[in-house]
Amino acid sequence: MNKICIYDTTLRDGAQSEGISFSVNDKIRIARKLDELGVDFIEGGWPGSNPKDDEFFKEAAKNLKLKRSKLAAFGSTRRADVSPAKDVVMKGLLRAGTKYITIFGKSWDLHVKTVLKTTLNENLNMIEDSVSYLRKKGRHVIFDAEHFFDGYEENPAYAVDTVRAAERGGAETLVLCDTNGGTVTSRLFEIVEEVKAKVKTPLGIHVHNDADMAVANSVAAVQAGCVQVQGTFNGYGERCGNANLVSILPTLKFKLGFDCLAQFEFKYLTEASRYIAEISNVKQQDAQPYVGKSAFAHKAGVHVNAILKNPRTYEHLDPDRVGNKRRMLISELSGKSSVTKKAGELGIKIEKSSPKAKKILTYVQDLEKEGYQFELAEASLFLLMKRASETFKKQFELEDFRVIVEKRQGGKLVSEATVKLKIGNKARHTVATGDGPVHALDQALRKSLIEFYPSLKEMHLSDFRVRVLDEKAATAAKVRVLIQSQDKTDSWWTVGVSENIIEASWLALKDSIEYKFEKDKKKRKKNNHMIAKKA
Amino acid sequence: MNKICIYDTTLRDGAQSEGISFSVNDKIRIARKLDELGVDFIEGGWPGSNPKDDEFFKEAAKNLKLKRSKLAAFGSTRRADVSPAKDVVMKGLLRAGTKYITIFGKSWDLHVKTVLKTTLNENLNMIEDSVSYLRKKGRHVIFDAEHFFDGYEENPAYAVDTVRAAERGGAETLVLCDTNGGTVTSRLFEIVEEVKAKVKTPLGIHVHNDADMAVANSVAAVQAGCVQVQGTFNGYGERCGNANLVSILPTLKFKLGFDCLAQFEFKYLTEASRYIAEISNVKQQDAQPYVGKSAFAHKAGVHVNAILKNPRTYEHLDPDRVGNKRRMLISELSGKSSVTKKAGELGIKIEKSSPKAKKILTYVQDLEKEGYQFELAEASLFLLMKRASETFKKQFELEDFRVIVEKRQGGKLVSEATVKLKIGNKARHTVATGDGPVHALDQALRKSLIEFYPSLKEMHLSDFRVRVLDEKAATAAKVRVLIQSQDKTDSWWTVGVSENIIEASWLALKDSIEYKFEKDKKKRKKNNHMIAKKA
Repeated sequence: MNKICIYDTTLRDGAQSEGISFSVNDKIRIARKLDELGVDFIEGGWPGSNPKDDEFFKEAAKNLKLKRSKLAAFGSTRRADVSPAKDVVMKGLLRAGTKYITIFGKSWDLHVKTVLKTTLNENLNMIEDSVSYLRKKGRHVIFDAEHFFDGYEENPAYAVDTVRAAERGGAETLVLCDTNGGTVTSRLFEIVEEVKAKVKTPLGIHVHNDADMAVANSVAAVQAGCVQVQGTFNGYGERCGNANLVSILPTLKFKLGFDCLAQFEFKYLTEASRYIAEISNVKQQDAQPYVGKSAFAHKAGVHVNAILKNPRTYEHLDPDRVGNKRRMLISELSGKSSVTKKAGELGIKIEKSSPKAKKILTYVQDLEKEGYQFELAEASLFLLMKRASETFKKQFELEDFRVIVEKRQGGKLVSEATVKLKIGNKARHTVATGDGPVHALDQALRKSLIEFYPSLKEMHLSDFRVRVLDEKAATAAKVRVLIQSQDKTDSWWTVGVSENIIEASWLALKDSIEYKFEKDKKKRKKNNHMIAKKA
Repeated sequence: MNKICIYDTTLRDGAQSEGISFSVNDKIRIARKLDELGVDFIEGGWPGSNPKDDEFFKEAAKNLKLKRSKLAAFGSTRRADVSPAKDVVMKGLLRAGTKYITIFGKSWDLHVKTVLKTTLNENLNMIEDSVSYLRKKGRHVIFDAEHFFDGYEENPAYAVDTVRAAERGGAETLVLCDTNGGTVTSRLFEIVEEVKAKVKTPLGIHVHNDADMAVANSVAAVQAGCVQVQGTFNGYGERCGNANLVSILPTLKFKLGFDCLAQFEFKYLTEASRYIAEISNVKQQDAQPYVGKSAFAHKAGVHVNAILKNPRTYEHLDPDRVGNKRRMLISELSGKSSVTKKAGELGIKIEKSSPKAKKILTYVQDLEKEGYQFELAEASLFLLMKRASETFKKQFELEDFRVIVEKRQGGKLVSEATVKLKIGNKARHTVATGDGPVHALDQALRKSLIEFYPSLKEMHLSDFRVRVLDEKAATAAKVRVLIQSQDKTDSWWTVGVSENIIEASWLALKDSIEYKFEKDKKKRKKNNHMIAKKA
């Protein structure tokens, strides 16, 4: 079977995502991660199109030092009626100094006429000239046939002529692009097969996700004979994104047995996906195939039960292979076996037959009846299980609190919280203001605790969700608050339920801080140098 | 070409999503929306599996009154060695009272042995018996062949036997399920074709998204001969979700010309996707194909330029066809026409060329930038449009307010709100307590207003949702509050955005009351007996 070459364009096409804006430093960090994983090609950007990309290639030449991957610069063919040697795009591409250059040309006659406003023949010259010029300068050239599939549907002979022009110029790979992302899998497969019969140069595939088929289309193209797959990490890209390499890679490797990325470190795939999401400042989708937090999470009682008997019953792949984890969600339907299993996952040992397991199960079920939900709020679930043990000690106790939100005589809105705590045998009474009542409460709480637990400084609230539970709306409706907190290394969710949104927030807030303490304690134990607790 | 039947399981399989938990009321609202759109089948839940689903079917029987869709109840076959008449699942299914019943049975021998722990033969009996029993009771039966594809790979003869058993029992559709979601498109297509040659009953397809191919797989299955597609709105579902109907529908209709959903209102697809996301309390993905905010958003300069020459250059479909919008700076004109269109829907007449239309458009765009969202909160949008007219008069004005939430010395939690209002030329200063701060605010507000507007008595808050907008913002993040209100005849949503949850709630609360006034005014006008306004 052919080796499949993986070409990542997160740094170029991925940067076209609405809401993503990479700094040069971000790009360097992502390139290092891709190199660590062992991707074949990293497309760094379009030199000459913006100062940031120029700077990236300069920085890359000096300091990047890739070990496994090859860096490619991206750009267009020369413009119409300009010689390659005088063309500004060609100059920019050469200046970037990469051994590999990818240029795109127009394969759809509509684009040649409407956008380039040149003749069909000159477009073929532009493609051939540009490729051969860069070849003569000693560079390897990959040709991206933009809008190839749309072009093929309207004028197949011309579309094929464009890739043949690139072939004549000396391109090493001809990449068929579904730029508008609207081609259906069956048709894309046919077209790739037809084109393969008409050229000698190896084919590649580059598709977008506008019809929600980018992953299936990329895989089908490989089955039809493409030997290079272009895509982005997490599927970032303009509009609906590019083909998601994170989904394509394990499918090619584990399901179809293609020889893709012999060196590729699949067991770091989940971590890499999350790392790149973090740098992109985009939340990784929980439901993301293979690597998402929910990708191997089981909720339905029937499923949980079967998974415990044999994971194959409800898993298409062993999550270990891509560095992900199985998770049993505790919900209305759970039994004792999932409680003890869950405890194990959270690092707490409980025997299934022990009274503690029963106690926890009853407690979880009671709280769920009240409206608690622990699927997301695993930190609260962890604490709940910890509290069931006799040795658990509360870090602090709330005595009083008051929150005031006030607006007077056209003045600014003010939120103020007062908190009275007992920490060990010491009392603290503090007051603080905030952007809103929950923020004020958080601030007052920290003011009390920070002298005892300085590590609170590294922690902050990162998300906050509220929902009314209108199951039985006859009397006062209950409110469920979910809070996400974050420190340098982790993030965790906690939950609180009450008729009063401030109290529900307080409960979730308190759990979030208690979890931080427990987490740090565990870490200290692990590092084997116990630190004496203050107070 | 065959008619393709669309079977929605958002209320059942979609509810298995991590983080989604529908109330009975949520389910009713989603069912209404699906019926409006014209989906063929709505799977309501699994009666007998939990009290909530039982309640849903009871409520549905009384009040749902579907116009276009058919409601289906879901459950398993009877258990091993139990007669159907005595089986608790069968009883639950019949009790739900739907004309259509979908039951799933095991098609993978591994499951029969490991999970059911019965013989392969008894499993076939369970399938045939259960179907024929329900048929004898006068119900239409759809059979979901769970894990069909995994089963077929390991024991094809047995997998086919299971659907044949359902066929003998009298099932009207045999639905092949890729329950673990790991089957690759090419193989799935082959298997569907092979099975189609072996049975006479129409086939359906039900796939999950674990290999990121659920949409392509569903479409391929239709091309291989399936005539029913099962999926969920926005692809909600356990693990990586189910096949996303929102992507499948326009692909089948506009790209492949299948006769699917003749009555289906494609132009409301975007709105429906967002409405269901809102009820699920899940953010709609910006990059979601067809309906996402970014699906037709053009960022790259090259693209924007070409789009202005011809939208086909970078769009696979006209966004109008699915009710979505192209987003570019130039779109002011199309923006204006959709504002006037929306105004018309809400019963407000605005000329497209009027300065008022422009004023409203700018105002909506500014608010959207701040984080407002009007898909669900149409009452707030209505008021916003009303306020743009010169004749609009505020009913009341807030001067000061204060909210206190307090707990002292082990006592009960107290929430108290003070409100100072101007109603016409009269001032009112009131104080009230409530179950929480928003409830207290609502109570104080009513106390001020009720003497002027007695109809407030019939109105109450029925839902309340909060979301933090910029999750990553280290400093003050904005909060969006959505409030649902209800009187004897209607319910409506309003929205408020602020850094402070109390202020955001106040804004939504104020809109909800103002909307009630406007609504009553309109009704009075309609009834042609104007009531002199007090004060």
